[in-house]
Amino acid sequence: MPKTIEVTELILRDAHQSLMATRMAMEDMVPACEDIDKAGYWSVECWGGATFDSCIRFLNEDPWDRLRKFRKLLPNSRLQMLLRGQNLLGYRHYEDEVVDRFVDKAAENGMDVFRVFDALNDIRNVRQAIKAVKKAGKHAQGTICYTVSPLHTVTGYVEMAEQLVDLGCDSICIKDMAALLKPQPAYDIVKAIKEACGEELRIHVHVHATTGVTMVSLMKAIEAGADCVDTAISSLSLGPGHNPTESLVEMLEGTPYVTKLDKSRLLKVKEYFAGIRPRYKEYLSNITGVETEIFDSQIPGGMISNMESQLKQQGAADRLKEVLCEVPRVRKDAGYPPLVTPSSQIVGTQAVFNVMMGRYKVLTGEFADLMLGYYGTTLGQRDPEVINLAHKQARKNPITCRPADLLKPEWDQLRSSGLALKGCNGSDEDVLTYAMFPQVAPKFFSTRQEGPKNLGKDPSAKPAAAPAPGGNAETGKGPVM
Amino acid sequence: MPKTIEVTELILRDAHQSLMATRMAMEDMVPACEDIDKAGYWSVECWGGATFDSCIRFLNEDPWDRLRKFRKLLPNSRLQMLLRGQNLLGYRHYEDEVVDRFVDKAAENGMDVFRVFDALNDIRNVRQAIKAVKKAGKHAQGTICYTVSPLHTVTGYVEMAEQLVDLGCDSICIKDMAALLKPQPAYDIVKAIKEACGEELRIHVHVHATTGVTMVSLMKAIEAGADCVDTAISSLSLGPGHNPTESLVEMLEGTPYVTKLDKSRLLKVKEYFAGIRPRYKEYLSNITGVETEIFDSQIPGGMISNMESQLKQQGAADRLKEVLCEVPRVRKDAGYPPLVTPSSQIVGTQAVFNVMMGRYKVLTGEFADLMLGYYGTTLGQRDPEVINLAHKQARKNPITCRPADLLKPEWDQLRSSGLALKGCNGSDEDVLTYAMFPQVAPKFFSTRQEGPKNLGKDPSAKPAAAPAPGGNAETGKGPVM
Ligand SMILES: [Co+2]
Ligand SMILES: [Co+2]
Repeated sequence: MPKTIEVTELILRDAHQSLMATRMAMEDMVPACEDIDKAGYWSVECWGGATFDSCIRFLNEDPWDRLRKFRKLLPNSRLQMLLRGQNLLGYRHYEDEVVDRFVDKAAENGMDVFRVFDALNDIRNVRQAIKAVKKAGKHAQGTICYTVSPLHTVTGYVEMAEQLVDLGCDSICIKDMAALLKPQPAYDIVKAIKEACGEELRIHVHVHATTGVTMVSLMKAIEAGADCVDTAISSLSLGPGHNPTESLVEMLEGTPYVTKLDKSRLLKVKEYFAGIRPRYKEYLSNITGVETEIFDSQIPGGMISNMESQLKQQGAADRLKEVLCEVPRVRKDAGYPPLVTPSSQIVGTQAVFNVMMGRYKVLTGEFADLMLGYYGTTLGQRDPEVINLAHKQARKNPITCRPADLLKPEWDQLRSSGLALKGCNGSDEDVLTYAMFPQVAPKFFSTRQEGPKNLGKDPSAKPAAAPAPGGNAETGKGPVM
Repeated sequence: MPKTIEVTELILRDAHQSLMATRMAMEDMVPACEDIDKAGYWSVECWGGATFDSCIRFLNEDPWDRLRKFRKLLPNSRLQMLLRGQNLLGYRHYEDEVVDRFVDKAAENGMDVFRVFDALNDIRNVRQAIKAVKKAGKHAQGTICYTVSPLHTVTGYVEMAEQLVDLGCDSICIKDMAALLKPQPAYDIVKAIKEACGEELRIHVHVHATTGVTMVSLMKAIEAGADCVDTAISSLSLGPGHNPTESLVEMLEGTPYVTKLDKSRLLKVKEYFAGIRPRYKEYLSNITGVETEIFDSQIPGGMISNMESQLKQQGAADRLKEVLCEVPRVRKDAGYPPLVTPSSQIVGTQAVFNVMMGRYKVLTGEFADLMLGYYGTTLGQRDPEVINLAHKQARKNPITCRPADLLKPEWDQLRSSGLALKGCNGSDEDVLTYAMFPQVAPKFFSTRQEGPKNLGKDPSAKPAAAPAPGGNAETGKGPVM
């Protein structure tokens, strides 16, 4: 009997986030839901920070309403979301009560599976969210952000998996947002976690397609015992997106593994989104091939374009090479954080500052916070001299505690501020929307009654003043912390 | 010690054939040659039927001159070509002396490795070419066209490999022109051939990327013992093309396999062709994603578009579904030929005829020839009733001998006809050019002195009356037989 490999479909969240700047309107997803629901997926990822943000920033859509619609449209499916641990869907750490309330409301509105991660892999930053998910009776998926550095080892990832299991996680996700996970490490990490934690521990693998090797990594992860992999329907796959769902199904033919996906349903979903895709062409990623340089530079493509535009703004476009050489140095000094949002922006901007003004002559507020522990802890030791500079410039003390431990209860304040906004409907959901995006929510509440804008249908509906989406498609954008 | 996996670079032949309609001018390849030459490839594929055709049909370039230039520009590299067995680079069977003379001249002008195949996998159609290659002291690579049918088995492929070895082949190529080769069969076939023929028999694997699974197939083929795989530099890869060279290098990191490719050279080649690619945008394939339907339909994408346009011409575009259902029937009746040029066009056109006029009411001349054995033998038995119809309509008897056995010596006639053409330079190379493309060569000879046209540089140089390239990018196009 072949082993069934389960699949999480990404089309409703990460796929359009990675390939069309998170702009897909709910209206354009609805017609595909029946086929998605009946195709046999283990789960359907459909909610996260960037989609939430995009809903209120660009689409004039209530993200909670979107979730409730998904719940109705996908009655047979586990709904899955990506949750940034103590940051929830926002860009700062929230006090624990806010975490609890957010998770409760997401569960109440229909969420089944919470993939909880922290950009620094600081386990303390995911603890409260996982606890809340378990309390709500939902599936808590503890997440390991995969990165490469002299300090990141298979053993380290296994230890993190064990800690996540100890927190009560129902499954582990190995999350490779930058397409860095090669076949052999994919095999080794899955194998080692299974050996350490037991065969029955579910392991999910999330990879992007950017570097052209990760379909092979999925195969190797499956051979090592992975239970579920993430893919996106082919018409919205590849490039900075994901490996195609249909290819995964075909890849396994004749092997000791099989999916239970219904190919005729997949074909319908494919054809449907092939029709939708061109409507969003102004948002489409123009990367359709692969990029392998990231393996050597460790600098994701989106981060390079961010740094390029920062340099251009300062009339120093010719200094990109220096900045690219500076990045690994800054990353090392910061204790080898994975380079994903927000750490990629923080490290990248500091590298630009270092080249333009001299090394660590000026620290950004965010970099100082990172050095001082306000984002959490890093695997590597942070450089004591740079910590000292950060301490002096930011006039803050370094901390070693969990960052959220410094926060005072804030729910009541958030609630009263939220309720005071014009158009707020008085629900806890609205308060949470305000709490996540205090700069964007007020305008959204005030225009909500105008109804959703479909930017694919009517590109002119795009608000002229809206900021462009940030560099990293994975975890959203905007101001940090 | 990791095993070194060798690589054949396809950028100079199959990559631009598959992705930009074979239009790349020699001028645009020259600057990349030094880096290609020093990157550490096992071979550089740079010549074949479609590039030869395109040279004289579109680019006003002497294909023999191109070969001699490659020889000078790539002094450290094995030059490799694709040779259609008894068809050489043309669309009919040639008498053995022409085969011998062609191979001799190709060798003399610098060719090292001859990948010899027959579209029907009829070993008799590759015998003479392989003999000629061996006589010229060059590398003869016997080729198995991979296809899927109820009759095609691993055992069958192993037997074909053994026969190719018996003919004196220096290596075996498994050639998957339609991206049908899944990981498990890739593993099984390579493994079984190695077991039957010995570990020391070199096995090369050629796959396209169309279906999104073949990078995994390369990994599995390597695990089974494959010695060399074909890839294309990333900036001209994927879609109907090939897996990216750089991704292959990275994929193997940490495994028991390694390439000896120089990544910094690859990066230069990549960046160079990334700059060239947009200049050919009017020829670029607009398929950048994957297509997996071919696994079920067995009908390559190019073949579907051919049939669609045939139906449109007859005002019957609405009957495509019927035709698609008819194709497997026709293929079965024809003895399950692999669906590649020319068999894909022959089977596809007959399916259109069957739907439009009633099953086998009218046979095309080519389909009749196929049924009567004039292309060679097929793995499956051809349907006796349809053979009978072909016999009646074509007024030809079925044959079972090697088709070329029926041909009379023709070199002297070809030579005198070729030499009589205006602009012919009197060389055997020119005679061979005429022999391969008797309809195109006369015009080419008469305009040759005007020098090459670079369609990327100056799209207006495109001859207005030139026919569009045919459906299948693999083995050329144009009239058949
Ligand atoms: Co992702
Ligand atoms: Co090919």
